[in-house]
Amino acid sequence: MSDYRFLKACWGEPVDRTPVWLMRQAGRYLPQYMAVRSKVSFLELCKTPELAAEVTIQPIDYLGADAAILFSDILTPVEPMGLKLDFAPGPVFESPVRTQADIDALRIPVMEEDVPYVLETIRILRREFEGRVPLIGFGGAPFTLACYMVEGKGSKDFAQIKRMMYSAPESYASLMEKITEMDRQYLNAQIAAGAQAIQIFDTWGGIVSPGDYEKYILPYTTKLIEGLNRTGVPIIHFVKGAGTMLDLVKRAGSDVVGLDWHIGLGKARNLLGTEVAVQGNLDPTILYAPPEHIEREVKRILDENDGRPGHIFNLGHGILPTVPPEHAKFMVECVQRLSAKG
Amino acid sequence: MSDYRFLKACWGEPVDRTPVWLMRQAGRYLPQYMAVRSKVSFLELCKTPELAAEVTIQPIDYLGADAAILFSDILTPVEPMGLKLDFAPGPVFESPVRTQADIDALRIPVMEEDVPYVLETIRILRREFEGRVPLIGFGGAPFTLACYMVEGKGSKDFAQIKRMMYSAPESYASLMEKITEMDRQYLNAQIAAGAQAIQIFDTWGGIVSPGDYEKYILPYTTKLIEGLNRTGVPIIHFVKGAGTMLDLVKRAGSDVVGLDWHIGLGKARNLLGTEVAVQGNLDPTILYAPPEHIEREVKRILDENDGRPGHIFNLGHGILPTVPPEHAKFMVECVQRLSAKG
Repeated sequence: MSDYRFLKACWGEPVDRTPVWLMRQAGRYLPQYMAVRSKVSFLELCKTPELAAEVTIQPIDYLGADAAILFSDILTPVEPMGLKLDFAPGPVFESPVRTQADIDALRIPVMEEDVPYVLETIRILRREFEGRVPLIGFGGAPFTLACYMVEGKGSKDFAQIKRMMYSAPESYASLMEKITEMDRQYLNAQIAAGAQAIQIFDTWGGIVSPGDYEKYILPYTTKLIEGLNRTGVPIIHFVKGAGTMLDLVKRAGSDVVGLDWHIGLGKARNLLGTEVAVQGNLDPTILYAPPEHIEREVKRILDENDGRPGHIFNLGHGILPTVPPEHAKFMVECVQRLSAKG
Repeated sequence: MSDYRFLKACWGEPVDRTPVWLMRQAGRYLPQYMAVRSKVSFLELCKTPELAAEVTIQPIDYLGADAAILFSDILTPVEPMGLKLDFAPGPVFESPVRTQADIDALRIPVMEEDVPYVLETIRILRREFEGRVPLIGFGGAPFTLACYMVEGKGSKDFAQIKRMMYSAPESYASLMEKITEMDRQYLNAQIAAGAQAIQIFDTWGGIVSPGDYEKYILPYTTKLIEGLNRTGVPIIHFVKGAGTMLDLVKRAGSDVVGLDWHIGLGKARNLLGTEVAVQGNLDPTILYAPPEHIEREVKRILDENDGRPGHIFNLGHGILPTVPPEHAKFMVECVQRLSAKG
C-alpha cells in the first residue's frame, strides 16, 4: 500500500527504523509557530487553511518527524453543532449543554459547508507532503467532546457531565449518540479529503473507573471506529490515563493504541498482544532533561519494545510549551539513530 | 491491641463489617465546616487546635465514619523549614526552592516548638474520641512536598522539579533526603502525640513513569516508612495515579496501600496479594449520582473485594467540595449495611 514507515508500523509491518512524531508537534514550543500565531487568534489560525498548513509543516521541516498531523482543535466541529466557542485561553462554550432540550437543539454539521477550512487544509498538505511524510487527521473521542460541551470548559471534577451520566442516563446516551455520529462524519470527511491515518484523542477517557469506561465510553468509541472508512487508513486511539484498562481500550478496535507514560511500554505490549500496534510513550517532561538523559530514556523505551513490529515512537502526551525546541529535535534524532537496523 | 474495626482491617484481621472513612471528610462540602471556616483563614484553622479539632469531629458526628483524620495541611511542617506559605486559594510559597543554596538553607523544624498546634490538636482529639473512633495522622510523601517546595505552587507540567531531578540529580537527592528526615520526625511526633495510624499522601507520585518512580521517589518513601515508630500504628500509603505500578508502591513497605478509582479493586488486590491491606476506591464523582446509583457502586466494590480481610472502604481521592453532604452520609450507610456479616 505505502512505503511510509509510519503507516507500515501502524499496520504492524517491519520497518527500517522506528517512526517518530510528537503529539502537538505544531505548537507553542516552536518560535516559528509563535511568529504565525502572533498575527492571528488561535481560532483564526485553525480556520485559515494556508496558515494551518504552514504550522503543520514547520515541525516536519524542523524536527524531521516521520508523520505530520493536521493543525486544528478537537472542538472545531463542535462549534457548528450550535455551540459558540471561545478561547480564554482554554476553550469555553458560552452556553454549555445541560438539558435534553439543549441536546435536541444540536445539529450535525454538513462538513464541506461547515468546516471547509479543515478539509482544505488537508488537501493543501497532501499536495505539499506528497512522497515526503504521511498526514494524520484527528478528532476528539465522543466522551472528551461531551465533557467540553457539558462542562462548558475544562474541569477538575467534571461534576456536570457526571451528573448527567448518572442522573439522566437517557440524555447522556442521546448526547453521546449525536456526538458519535457527528464525529463519524467529520473523520470520514477528513479521510475523503486525504487524511492517511486518523488519531482519536480521548483526553478525558481516563477520568472514570474501568467499569464506567466500559459502560459509558467504550460503546461510543467502538461505534465511531466501526463507522470509519478505514480501508488503508489506520486508526490510532489514545486514551490518556488508561494504563489500568488497556484491555478495554483495545476492545474499541483501533489499529494502534496510544500509550501515556504511566505504564511501561514493555508491560503494555505484553498486555495488548502483538496484533495491535502501539504509539508512545516518553514522559513529555523528559524533554526538560539534558541530552544524555533524553537519549537514555529513548533507548529504554526502544529496549522495552524489544524489536517487536508495530511501534511508533511518540510522547505520552502533547509536547509542553516551555520545552526547548532543540531538545525535541534531539529526541527525534535519537529515535532515528538508535532504532536504525545496523 | 485494639477493638477498632478500622485498625483491625489495617492489620488484615477479620472485622464485623468493612470500616469506612472519606479522604477530606472534614471539608468544604459540609455546611458545619464552612461555618467555622467563615470566621478564620485556612491557615488559622490549621493552627488553632480547638478549631482544627472541631472540624475533625464534625464528619464523625455527621457521617458516622469509622475513623477520624486530623485536620491539617500537608504543607504545615514545610513552612517552619523556612518557606513562607500562603493560600491564594491554593498553596503558594513566596520563594520556591531552586538551587543547592536554597536547599542548604532549609532547616528541620523542632516539632514541639514549630508545629505545637498539630500535636495539641491530636491530644485534644484523642481525649475526645476515646473509645469511639481511632485517629489517623498524616503527612505528604517526600516527593509531593518537594513538588510544592520547588514549583512554589500547584503545577500542570512540573517543569521545575523535573529540571532539578534530571539536570541536578545531586541537588534533588539532597532535597529529598532533607524532606524525608523532616517527614520522619514530623510523623513520629504525631505518633508520639497519639496518632493511631498514619496516612502518607503522595498526590503527585503518579506523574512520573514507573521507571522514574522507582529511581526518584520510591527510595525516599521507603526510607520514611522504615523510619517511623510503627509498633501498633499502621501506615497507609496512598499514591494517586499509581494503578499501573502498584508492585512498586507495595515495595515502599506500608501496611495498607491506598487505591484511586482508576483500577478495579479486585484486580488491585490480585496484584498486591493479601499480605497487604487496601483502602479505597470509589470514584469521588459517584457522590453526584442518585442514591440508588451510589448504592450499586458501593456494592460493586464490596463484591470486588469478595470478603478478603484487610479492606478499608474510602473514596479514591478527596471528597469534592460540591458534593451533597447527604450523599456522603448515604454512602457511609451503604458500606456499613451492605458489608455487615449476616
